[in-house]
Amino acid sequence: MQRGGPVEGTPAEGAVFLTALTAGPIARVDIARETGLSSAAVTRVAKLLIDEGYLEYAPDQPATSDETRMGRPSSPLRVHARQTGSFGIIVRRDELIGVVCDLAGAPRVSERRPLAENTVDAAVAAIAAFYRELVARADEAGFVVAPHDLGLSLSGDIDHDTGYVRYSPFLGWRDVDLGAAVSRAIGAPVVVENDVKALTVAEQWFGLGRGITNFAVVTIGTGIGCAIVVDGGLVRGAHSVAGEIGHLPLGDPSVQCHCGAHGCVEAEASTKALLDSCRAATGRDDLTIETAVELARSGDERVRAIFARAGRLIGLALASVANLLGPERVIVAGEGVSSYDLFETAIREAFAEQAFGAAHQVPIHVRDLPFEEWARGAAAVAIQELVFPSRQRVAADVRRRPGVRRV
Amino acid sequence: MQRGGPVEGTPAEGAVFLTALTAGPIARVDIARETGLSSAAVTRVAKLLIDEGYLEYAPDQPATSDETRMGRPSSPLRVHARQTGSFGIIVRRDELIGVVCDLAGAPRVSERRPLAENTVDAAVAAIAAFYRELVARADEAGFVVAPHDLGLSLSGDIDHDTGYVRYSPFLGWRDVDLGAAVSRAIGAPVVVENDVKALTVAEQWFGLGRGITNFAVVTIGTGIGCAIVVDGGLVRGAHSVAGEIGHLPLGDPSVQCHCGAHGCVEAEASTKALLDSCRAATGRDDLTIETAVELARSGDERVRAIFARAGRLIGLALASVANLLGPERVIVAGEGVSSYDLFETAIREAFAEQAFGAAHQVPIHVRDLPFEEWARGAAAVAIQELVFPSRQRVAADVRRRPGVRRV
Repeated sequence: MQRGGPVEGTPAEGAVFLTALTAGPIARVDIARETGLSSAAVTRVAKLLIDEGYLEYAPDQPATSDETRMGRPSSPLRVHARQTGSFGIIVRRDELIGVVCDLAGAPRVSERRPLAENTVDAAVAAIAAFYRELVARADEAGFVVAPHDLGLSLSGDIDHDTGYVRYSPFLGWRDVDLGAAVSRAIGAPVVVENDVKALTVAEQWFGLGRGITNFAVVTIGTGIGCAIVVDGGLVRGAHSVAGEIGHLPLGDPSVQCHCGAHGCVEAEASTKALLDSCRAATGRDDLTIETAVELARSGDERVRAIFARAGRLIGLALASVANLLGPERVIVAGEGVSSYDLFETAIREAFAEQAFGAAHQVPIHVRDLPFEEWARGAAAVAIQELVFPSRQRVAADVRRRPGVRRV
Repeated sequence: MQRGGPVEGTPAEGAVFLTALTAGPIARVDIARETGLSSAAVTRVAKLLIDEGYLEYAPDQPATSDETRMGRPSSPLRVHARQTGSFGIIVRRDELIGVVCDLAGAPRVSERRPLAENTVDAAVAAIAAFYRELVARADEAGFVVAPHDLGLSLSGDIDHDTGYVRYSPFLGWRDVDLGAAVSRAIGAPVVVENDVKALTVAEQWFGLGRGITNFAVVTIGTGIGCAIVVDGGLVRGAHSVAGEIGHLPLGDPSVQCHCGAHGCVEAEASTKALLDSCRAATGRDDLTIETAVELARSGDERVRAIFARAGRLIGLALASVANLLGPERVIVAGEGVSSYDLFETAIREAFAEQAFGAAHQVPIHVRDLPFEEWARGAAAVAIQELVFPSRQRVAADVRRRPGVRRV
């Protein structure tokens, strides 16, 4: 895990750590069953991870000093929560939300800062300044701040392997080498991930994805996003494109989307699309999304019909995911969940109509998660990188040559 | 792999066998790299698999007798092709197509028989009679016929874990305990799989899926089907529903599908839907799909437009898979490929329009595969069951109690 030390970041080490993280406190015999590793391998790896401070025995089962030294086979193990701080920042159009998590992924510090300007340079400078503030806060809180620890998430088409932002419509960015730029600015490695994918890692480890191996997170709001976990792994896509549920052509083929295609779910169901439609239907250009929601709740049928239409497309999109992938559950999140009452009936009806065969059994869970939880997802991606360092990373020494390097 | 013998069907044994099967002849050092197993583990498992007749040294690199006995680390290994016959049968509406494959998956016997009647009882009797003929042919060809070897595939919603057919529209079957019935009739275990998923296992091991870990197979023809491989694993879905691309609502919302939903791709693009539309457009009730294709090729614009419309929906469906999953490639197969010239332009245009961002780079490969290749897929599923016997199987002794049992 930390390069150069006796912990090497082998798949076995990653599997034992991740099992302790997501299922701990857990006995070694159960880690062996969960991971498929032999008991001998688990014992060897667990000892190494304990010696290096990644794992510890859960204190609620006191052992004799001999047993503590030897490690009783049944002593439950858990992640040593305080060892290392992991930093996660989500970049939104007008705000940065950051958390510092302990190694077990629990947020211990959380802050928000406005993002005044959307140019790349301004955003990189703001992220770097915010990161330094978070480091200072983490230091005050007694964290060991290691140089492999910033997870950054934002919406759009992100190449997680290189830290490259191909296209982020809400920030107006195309082809931005963000990971390298932030890494240069803070002097530490950075991992960059699509915000919905990062949130999904947090759900998988700590939320409604715990203990299941196939699920999807669909987010509604500014964009209509999705991330998919299959057989326990996040689907990232061969070209870093995956989960683009907002661009399934389930809507009106005469409506053009900002992506250039027609009939996209996002073109009728995003917050901006909803607001444009509500303004056109009512003739009130002063409407905000909040006042539009109020109008709908007060019974305005024109506005209610627009939310119901969006709900129908979201329901068809959920059914499409269910028909193609058959997840165990679908989790709906995103800021649009705050007005879920206006979508719900249409979502459920469209899903029930279109889900094929047994797919209609897939349960839909609605989660009203604050952006701190999304930032925690970015920190989880940083922890993931620590545990499974097999992918490319944007390292602090990129300034020595342009682009990125493999670690 | 065979229960009771020294080969136990551990994940390591399965991984070594599968690597030799799909990448062999291959040196043990390369098996270790591919599987992530240690060299010592590969050496131990390979020795066991050689001793039990599953693997052999490739003969093109002669070794000294000492080296043969010890197994030189660089000696390439491959599957011992002749040891065991695997049987695969695909059930179509009016025909059974069967193959007998050696353990390396190469078809060594292949036969077709008409299926006169679609009742479950008649089909089970016909499958059993056909299986016995295939066993006799395999016996003549010198195969060891083991009692764990019939893979059966058919279209529809199939529960692979139990051998249960939930719904097969083209056979008109609902809730049929097919695996148990065929197993009773032949006195041997049976695995049942959706036909497109079975074909995809064959593509993964022996076709265009070899060496890649993320791809999709989309079939056009009687139905519009799809199977998806993510991170090297076939997506089966939590409720055995996955790959139902034919029931994405990308078409005309006023058209009802046989599944009850509206706007399904299959409702406009299946062979039957195409034929119905061509008959309506031309007023010619005598049209068959073959004569409709001839009409289109001779320039009939009414019929050409119907094929182009179907092509457009297929292209949108391919783009939906690309947007959600980002496969490395998409393979188009199925009997509809024989008239691919009538679909192609519309498929490519719709795909290019709708694929999001980098997903437009996903290459589309067209494969004109005979039904023997589909039957080989069913045999591959039987081999898969031999190699990774972790799932439920329909065993010969189900007659002792109704339903199925876990092995």
